[in-house]
Amino acid sequence: MQYKKTKLNQVKRGHKKAAYDKKTIHAILDATEICHIAFIYEGRAMVQPINFGRKGEYLYIHGSHQNRMTQALMDAGQITLSVMLLDALKLTRSAFHHSVNYRSVVVFGKVKELTNPEEKLLGLKTIVNHFVSDRWAHCRTPNDKELLATRVLEIKIESASAKIADQPNSEHKKDLDLDYWAGQIPVKQVYGEPVSASDLKPGLEIPEHVLAFCRRGETQ
Amino acid sequence: MQYKKTKLNQVKRGHKKAAYDKKTIHAILDATEICHIAFIYEGRAMVQPINFGRKGEYLYIHGSHQNRMTQALMDAGQITLSVMLLDALKLTRSAFHHSVNYRSVVVFGKVKELTNPEEKLLGLKTIVNHFVSDRWAHCRTPNDKELLATRVLEIKIESASAKIADQPNSEHKKDLDLDYWAGQIPVKQVYGEPVSASDLKPGLEIPEHVLAFCRRGETQ
Repeated sequence: MQYKKTKLNQVKRGHKKAAYDKKTIHAILDATEICHIAFIYEGRAMVQPINFGRKGEYLYIHGSHQNRMTQALMDAGQITLSVMLLDALKLTRSAFHHSVNYRSVVVFGKVKELTNPEEKLLGLKTIVNHFVSDRWAHCRTPNDKELLATRVLEIKIESASAKIADQPNSEHKKDLDLDYWAGQIPVKQVYGEPVSASDLKPGLEIPEHVLAFCRRGETQ
Repeated sequence: MQYKKTKLNQVKRGHKKAAYDKKTIHAILDATEICHIAFIYEGRAMVQPINFGRKGEYLYIHGSHQNRMTQALMDAGQITLSVMLLDALKLTRSAFHHSVNYRSVVVFGKVKELTNPEEKLLGLKTIVNHFVSDRWAHCRTPNDKELLATRVLEIKIESASAKIADQPNSEHKKDLDLDYWAGQIPVKQVYGEPVSASDLKPGLEIPEHVLAFCRRGETQ
């Protein structure tokens, strides 16, 4: 299954790195904690990082009712967001060919505010379980007051594209004989040992869903 | 030295996490490989990740002359960009109080295209040395053809703000007695051992500037 190529999501530069299949795009979204959301505020393009969750063709974010970003998204009714995982720094003999290996996704979607408490709870559950798998089952669910205090936005993915750079360095043949070192520095995001809260109730151990998450070792 | 607080850069939500001093903001920018740039394309807010460099109050990015982002930035004459370093996942007893520790910066700037070859070279040097410190001295500098093929944009930082969340979990007192585990999972970006290119000229070793970069261990 692929996202349809439109003028918006079709990759123009580096089109050989482009992917439109849903499996690839969803996997990159699921491996990422933070997305960057674009919005317009008083005529100016703005960008803000935020955590999110995905369930099928829907993404969920939440924020305060006073937040200018969530208000701008509601006013526009649409959203553009981007995620990126950096995988390697590519050091070439020529300054010009320095590059990175990465996996990125851009999503174009329609935005709807969830107002039904049951739908809001499902949106928040998706966000918390995207954070750490199965986390929702191991914490107190939001009460009515908390639900009222937060705004939950549902994003229907309308189109999307991925760019994946995972190749060896690219250089001009005539540069290969230069006396400069070339290679790649791998980059990854790792999780450390979980640290229990200082006010943890005696007798509680680090639960299996947290240990399993940390065993993933990195965000992929 | 502080960036002046304006309507644009003043942090409204979580203002206790806000910082406006240049030293803090520059340090976060310098610890980050990738920024996310907002721009407007056909009336729609867009966002794209890209690498960059910083020298004093100026940031530099580069791209193709055909790139819709660099064109949109030139048309607007201004830019908003954001960087974020994720430091910890904060798992609380209540779903509602889950959060992250992080360091983020948003920059508002004026954009100018560099056309003088000497200025373009300095911009590219700043980008390459932001990538890996001192890298420019250890690779071939761009030739005239390469300089013509790329567009270098100079961003004058007009205002900026940082948000730094580095605190223990925050929870309601009445939740502390629940039988749920709470704590933090540290997150960091690490660099692996550098991998030499398969077509490396015999006799070339991994140079000290690359080893020193990898010894940093993480992006801070």
